[in-house]
Amino acid sequence: MAVQVGTRNRRVTMASRPVGFPTESDFELDESEPGEPGAGEVLVRNLWVSVDPYQRGRMGTQRSYAKGLEIGDVMTAQAVGEVVDSRDPRYAAGDLVVGQLGWQDYAVARAGSVRRVPDFLDPPSLALHAVGATGFTAYFGLLDVGRPKPGDTVVVSGAAGAVGQVVGQIAKIAGCRTVGIAGGPEKCNECRLHGYDVGIDYKGDDVRAALKEACPDGVDVFFDNVGGEILQAVVPRMNVGARIVVCGQISQYNLERPEPTFYPAALIVFRGRMEGFLVNDYAHRFGEAAPRLARWVAEGKIRWTEHVTEGLENAPKALIGMLNGENRGKALVKVADRS
Amino acid sequence: MAVQVGTRNRRVTMASRPVGFPTESDFELDESEPGEPGAGEVLVRNLWVSVDPYQRGRMGTQRSYAKGLEIGDVMTAQAVGEVVDSRDPRYAAGDLVVGQLGWQDYAVARAGSVRRVPDFLDPPSLALHAVGATGFTAYFGLLDVGRPKPGDTVVVSGAAGAVGQVVGQIAKIAGCRTVGIAGGPEKCNECRLHGYDVGIDYKGDDVRAALKEACPDGVDVFFDNVGGEILQAVVPRMNVGARIVVCGQISQYNLERPEPTFYPAALIVFRGRMEGFLVNDYAHRFGEAAPRLARWVAEGKIRWTEHVTEGLENAPKALIGMLNGENRGKALVKVADRS
Repeated sequence: MAVQVGTRNRRVTMASRPVGFPTESDFELDESEPGEPGAGEVLVRNLWVSVDPYQRGRMGTQRSYAKGLEIGDVMTAQAVGEVVDSRDPRYAAGDLVVGQLGWQDYAVARAGSVRRVPDFLDPPSLALHAVGATGFTAYFGLLDVGRPKPGDTVVVSGAAGAVGQVVGQIAKIAGCRTVGIAGGPEKCNECRLHGYDVGIDYKGDDVRAALKEACPDGVDVFFDNVGGEILQAVVPRMNVGARIVVCGQISQYNLERPEPTFYPAALIVFRGRMEGFLVNDYAHRFGEAAPRLARWVAEGKIRWTEHVTEGLENAPKALIGMLNGENRGKALVKVADRS
Repeated sequence: MAVQVGTRNRRVTMASRPVGFPTESDFELDESEPGEPGAGEVLVRNLWVSVDPYQRGRMGTQRSYAKGLEIGDVMTAQAVGEVVDSRDPRYAAGDLVVGQLGWQDYAVARAGSVRRVPDFLDPPSLALHAVGATGFTAYFGLLDVGRPKPGDTVVVSGAAGAVGQVVGQIAKIAGCRTVGIAGGPEKCNECRLHGYDVGIDYKGDDVRAALKEACPDGVDVFFDNVGGEILQAVVPRMNVGARIVVCGQISQYNLERPEPTFYPAALIVFRGRMEGFLVNDYAHRFGEAAPRLARWVAEGKIRWTEHVTEGLENAPKALIGMLNGENRGKALVKVADRS
């Protein structure tokens, strides 16, 4: 099976580098022909594409862990799609795969660069979140970097976000007390549905006072997706030997010059460890995490929320909304139905 | 043996809390009678008292790992002294001991709170630095927290200071390339005498450019005694997986409000670890470090410099000088000769 003659590939590209918050004019929707897979490659028709904070980083020029986008490049994104043409024995038309396929209708990818979406994942978009990169980020960030012990108090910022909602539930599975920080009463409510014993509303509550009340035994692990003032509010509550997992710093991504927000001597006061990580560094261990996450989802121990925007053309809106904190759970764009 | 009738105990106390840099008027020299040791205690006549950056922290009111001083308290300090009266079978008059004895002529201490200074340590003041708290700080901070591998590049700030000069030499013993950062050409020269392959003068050199040249393979361990702008200059050179050992932040200790100086997302970029520690948390392992440090000193692999001020009454001057970066090597005050 190949694509029909005349099929067009819509792509969302970066039209200009955002200054501060991205706007829709920083993106462009163009059309071209779908690529032709070569030997060892597959052509994939995307069904869902992912919307993630790191995409804002790729649009800038600051030194980061990955090369940034150039003007005119298709926006980097994970996607779940359906193989429509395969030039590799590992995949056949109709197979569902997940990989870095970008914000577009069709992508050509090396067969070795995508993973099969297991049949039992329902919906298959789970391969983009609870049983995909989002879940892996929560799993390795919490368990390998944060190393919680049963009885520890784990605080998570961005707790109603994609990663945050999985972290809280893994922390519960690990026997911890969990405190989620999120913006607004609705998101705090969401926190309590996702494994948090307490939800703190950073927009409505006095965060320092609320943390003091919520963490009578101090904080052992702080899983930080946000940074800035929230980080500063948590630090005074850290216990001796506590760990700060630096997963993201979304409060800073739209500043032209991120501000230093942390005073390192705090780490002497609580003899603490602050550590950053990238989920892709754990790629060799995704095979350990995936079946556990899938089982916890099947058992109802990990509940998930998708924040779905319809239509590839609306992906920029979805990203801007997420950077403004509008999403609850995993932000996705539905591109097409399964054939 | 007890003290002679009429013997006075001079003590340097905190007269007022410093605002910014301490001044001599923040200290007071008073006199009282030496204390009487009770059962299980010893009376010690101090010979050398130590001068350390952490003492500035004890004079403030900010949350720290130890209770701060109150007005009128004797300044906290390690000292090496001679037992003059013992009410504990472990010690006899004439024994040399080291412990938290304070800036004073005589101190009463629990016998279990002091350690014996081994006879082979010459001078015995080594028990305050290369084979004492300073050496232990360098040893555990570098080896346990920084975990250097042979071939790693280790950068040290405050490299000509007491801890810094030992760190460089332990890093050489561990097979590393070593770069020391210090203030002024004389201190840089001192660096090269203490195990540093390169000395960078932060007062005279363009630190960022000099680091780039001195670290062609990036930085694997940054042992930071200083913080602030120097930390900011080193961070962009850190390799993936690199470690920042937060030993001290002397650039910040005299600010009324220490400024945040670190942007945590840097730890994501280089997937790094930043960790603080306190040497006293390793007290159960001093017995591992002490004989190694003593052997390295005996073998000439650890060379040390003492910056000695004469007379207990000059201890405040010595501390103020050290906070201004005037010392090279370990700052000590010589209080008395051995009897």
